Amino acid sequence: MKLNFKAIFSILGLLLMLNGGFMLMCLPVSIYYNDGDWHALLISGIFTLLIGLITYVLTKNQSNGGLKKRDGYLVVTMGWLCMSLFGTLPYLISQEIPFFTDAFFETLSGFTTTGASILNDIESIGKGILMWRSLTQWIGGMGIIVLTVAILPLLGIGGMQLFVAEAPGVTPDKLKPRITDTAKRLWLIYLGLTVFEAILLKIGGMDYFDSINHALTTMATGGFSTKNASVAYFTTPFIQYVIIVFMFLAGTNFTLTYFGLHGQLKKIWGNEEFRYYFSFSAGFVILITAVVFFVTDNSFESSFRDSLFQLVSIVTTTGYVTADYTNWAPLLTVIFFMLMFVGASAGSTAGGVKVVRHVILLKNSIMELRRQIHPAAVLPVRLNKKAVSSDITFNIMAFMIIYFMVFAFGSILISALGYDFNTSVGAVATCLGNIGPGFGKVGPMDNFAFISIPGKWILSFLMLLGRLELFTVLILFTPYYWTKH
Amino acid sequence: MKLNFKAIFSILGLLLMLNGGFMLMCLPVSIYYNDGDWHALLISGIFTLLIGLITYVLTKNQSNGGLKKRDGYLVVTMGWLCMSLFGTLPYLISQEIPFFTDAFFETLSGFTTTGASILNDIESIGKGILMWRSLTQWIGGMGIIVLTVAILPLLGIGGMQLFVAEAPGVTPDKLKPRITDTAKRLWLIYLGLTVFEAILLKIGGMDYFDSINHALTTMATGGFSTKNASVAYFTTPFIQYVIIVFMFLAGTNFTLTYFGLHGQLKKIWGNEEFRYYFSFSAGFVILITAVVFFVTDNSFESSFRDSLFQLVSIVTTTGYVTADYTNWAPLLTVIFFMLMFVGASAGSTAGGVKVVRHVILLKNSIMELRRQIHPAAVLPVRLNKKAVSSDITFNIMAFMIIYFMVFAFGSILISALGYDFNTSVGAVATCLGNIGPGFGKVGPMDNFAFISIPGKWILSFLMLLGRLELFTVLILFTPYYWTKH
Repeated sequence: MKLNFKAIFSILGLLLMLNGGFMLMCLPVSIYYNDGDWHALLISGIFTLLIGLITYVLTKNQSNGGLKKRDGYLVVTMGWLCMSLFGTLPYLISQEIPFFTDAFFETLSGFTTTGASILNDIESIGKGILMWRSLTQWIGGMGIIVLTVAILPLLGIGGMQLFVAEAPGVTPDKLKPRITDTAKRLWLIYLGLTVFEAILLKIGGMDYFDSINHALTTMATGGFSTKNASVAYFTTPFIQYVIIVFMFLAGTNFTLTYFGLHGQLKKIWGNEEFRYYFSFSAGFVILITAVVFFVTDNSFESSFRDSLFQLVSIVTTTGYVTADYTNWAPLLTVIFFMLMFVGASAGSTAGGVKVVRHVILLKNSIMELRRQIHPAAVLPVRLNKKAVSSDITFNIMAFMIIYFMVFAFGSILISALGYDFNTSVGAVATCLGNIGPGFGKVGPMDNFAFISIPGKWILSFLMLLGRLELFTVLILFTPYYWTKH
Repeated sequence: MKLNFKAIFSILGLLLMLNGGFMLMCLPVSIYYNDGDWHALLISGIFTLLIGLITYVLTKNQSNGGLKKRDGYLVVTMGWLCMSLFGTLPYLISQEIPFFTDAFFETLSGFTTTGASILNDIESIGKGILMWRSLTQWIGGMGIIVLTVAILPLLGIGGMQLFVAEAPGVTPDKLKPRITDTAKRLWLIYLGLTVFEAILLKIGGMDYFDSINHALTTMATGGFSTKNASVAYFTTPFIQYVIIVFMFLAGTNFTLTYFGLHGQLKKIWGNEEFRYYFSFSAGFVILITAVVFFVTDNSFESSFRDSLFQLVSIVTTTGYVTADYTNWAPLLTVIFFMLMFVGASAGSTAGGVKVVRHVILLKNSIMELRRQIHPAAVLPVRLNKKAVSSDITFNIMAFMIIYFMVFAFGSILISALGYDFNTSVGAVATCLGNIGPGFGKVGPMDNFAFISIPGKWILSFLMLLGRLELFTVLILFTPYYWTKH
C-alpha cells in the first residue's frame, strides 16, 4: 500500500494554518509593548497561514481514504518538523535570532517542550517574540496530548497502549473520532489549568506578561522563561510553590486530572503510575532536602523549596531552575543525572522515558528472576491489577534499550566535537529527555549558545527523537518502511 | 523441594581444597625469593585445605541426588564468596594487606578477574604473595569457563543458552558429564595458552616471574600486574603486542579457539559473535588511532599500539594499562566509558555484558521497528542463521535493563559517600564490568586504596554481581527463592 501523501499534506496544511494563527496572536503583544517586531510577526503569520491554506486546499478533496497507520509515523514527524521550520520565521525576520541553526534549535526546543535555549540574554528580546517563544512550547504541549492519547497507541509505540484503556470515552476505533472527543476534553483541561496558573502567578506578584508566559511553558513542561535567571528571578516562595504544583500537574496523566475534576478522586490514587510518580518524587524530595540542608547554609524551608523545585522540574522534564543543583553535592549531581532518564507520567506533556515504563521494567526485572527458577510458570507483569501482555513488556524493554543506544551514540557524537565528558553526556541526556538544562558547560545556569553548528543539529535531532518516543522517527530511517507492502 | 545444602557444602569443600592447593603452590616462589612470607602461605594453604577436606568428608556420602537447578545459584555465589574469603588469608597473615576489607576487595577483585587494586605500591609486596594475587585471577578464569560452559546455560541466564549448542561434545544433559567433558577440554586450552604466552613474554625480555604472572592474569582477562605502572613498565613493543594478542584470545569464545586448534577455521569466522567482536574492535582501533595520532606527538606505530592496547584491554575487561586514555581527548574518554558496557565474547573469561548480547539487542531493536509497522508478522532475531526464541531475547533485554539499574543505583550509592560524578560512575562501571581501571580518581593511573570501607564493600558486591551475570546473585535476594516450592 502506498503512503497517502495527499492526506499527509492535508494535515500539514491544517497544522501550518494553526501555526500562523498563533503567530498572529503575538502581534497585539508586540504592538502593545512597542518592541518593533510587529512586522516580523505579521509577515511570518500571514505567510505561514497562506502556505498552510494553499497546501490544505490543494490536497483536501483529493485525499482518499484518510490516514493509515503507516502514514501516521510520517505525518507526526513531518508535523513537528514543519511547525518548527515555519516557527523560525518570527525569530529570523525580526533578527532577534539572526542565524537559521540557532532559530531552528530554539523553535524545535519549543515545539518539543524541551526548553534548551541558545539565547544569552533573554530579557533583551522583544516581548512579542518572547510570547511566540512561549507559545511554541504551549502548542507543542497540545500536540503531545493528541499524540499520546490518540495517535501513539494506534501506532503501537512503547507501551502507550497501556493507559489508553483508561482514557475517558475512548474505544479503540479510528483516528478521527478519538481526536475530536478525548483530545478536546483534555485540551480544555490544559487550557483551563494554564489560565488558572496565570491568575495565581499574577496574584503572586508577576506582571501579566510574565505570568501568562510562565503559565504557558509550565503546563507544556517546557521551561522557557522570560528571565535570564529562569524562575530564580522570582524569589517569592508563593510563586515558586505555584509553579511546583502546576509542573507536577503538567507531569500527571491528563486523563487522571479529568477524573479528578469530575470528582472521581479514587481513580487517581487507584492509578499505579500516579502512585509511583507521587511516592517516588516524595521519597527523593526528602533525601535531597536532607542533603541540601546539611551541605548549605540555607534555612530548612528554602532547602525544601529548592530541592522540591529542582526535583519536580527535572522529573517532569520542565527544566526551570531556581538553584544550581550541580553545586550542591556530588551525590545530587549523580541523582539528578539519573533522574533525567525517568520522566513523568504517560499522557502528560512531560518528555523522557515515563514513569509507567519504569514501573513495568522494574516489575518485569523482579519477575524475570522468578522466571529463572520456574521457566514453565506464566508470570506476567501486572499494572493496575491487570496482566500486561508480554508483547507490550517486550516493546517497552526494546524502547529502553534503544533509548540507551541513542544516548550512548549521541554522547560519542557530541564529544567528537570536542566537548568534555560531563558536557557531552549532560547535553545529550537533557535534550533526549526534553528537559532543558544539563551538566558541565550546559548546566542549570548556562545555555546552548556556544555549541557548534553540527552540535546544535545533533541535539535538535535528539530532542525530536525523544519527544516523538523514538520509534515514530526511527521507523522512517528503516528501508523497510519505504518499500511497498 | 528443599535446597540440597549437603551437596552444596560438598562442592564448597572441594573448591576450598583446590584453593588451599593453589596457595601452597606459591610457597616455592616465596622461599626462592626469600620474601619472608612463606609461613603465611603455608598456614593459609594448610588451613584452607583442612577446612575444605573436613567439609567435603562430612558432606560427601550424605549428599543425596546431587545438585538441582535451584541449588546452582547458591553454590555458584557461595563458591565465589568462599574462595575470596579464604583467599584473603595469605594477605592478612603476611600482613602485606593488613585490613580485612582491603584484603577481601583485592581477593574478590582477583577471583572475579576484575583487576581493581587497593595496592599503592605493588612492587613492595613479596613475590610469593604477588604470585597468589595473580593466581586468584587465573583460578577465577577457570571458574568462569565452567560457569559459562556448563552451569549458566542450565540456569537459563541471560542468553547463555545461545552459544552452548556450539560447544564441542555437548548435549543438554546433567551437570556432571558436561563439566568433566567440555570444561576439561577448554581448561586444557586455557592452560596451554597461558604457558605459551609466558614463554613468549620471557622471550620478549620479561623475567620468569613477571612473564608467568602476566600470562596468568592476561588469560583470565584479569589485569593484575606485578608492576605499579602496569604493562606501561614493559616498553618493548613485542611484549605489548604479545599481550594484546593474548588478551584478544582470552576474550574469544574458548570453544572457537578449540575449533581453531582442530583446524576448523571456517567455524571461527562463521560465528557471528566473533565477527562482530573482531570487526567492532577493528573499527574502533582505526578511529582511536586516528584521534591519538592527531592530538598527541606520538609516532604512528606508538599511537596505533597504545590505542589497540587500551581498546582490547577495556573490551576484553582485562584492565591492563600502557597509557592514560583519559588524557587523550574528551571523545576517547566518552568512547572508553561506553566500551565498559560492551564486554568481549560469551564463553571467554571476559566479564561485562558480552558482545553476543549486544548483537541480539541491536538486531532486535531494528526488528522491533519493523514489528511496529506489521505487528502480526513473525519477525524473530537471527543469530548464526538460526532464529533466536523470543524468550531468550526477552531475557537478554531484561538482563541489560537490570544491568543499567544496578549501574544507576550503584553510582548513587558511591556518590553518596562523597565521590565526584566521574569517579562514581567510573568506579561502578569498571567494577560491574570486571574491568579494573575507571575514570576520575580511579583512572588508569590510580587505584582504589583511597575508597572508604563502605565504598569498597559496595564495589566488591558489584564485582560479584557483574561476574556472575547478575541473575545468579540477585535471585538469592528474592524471597521467592527461599520459599518452599
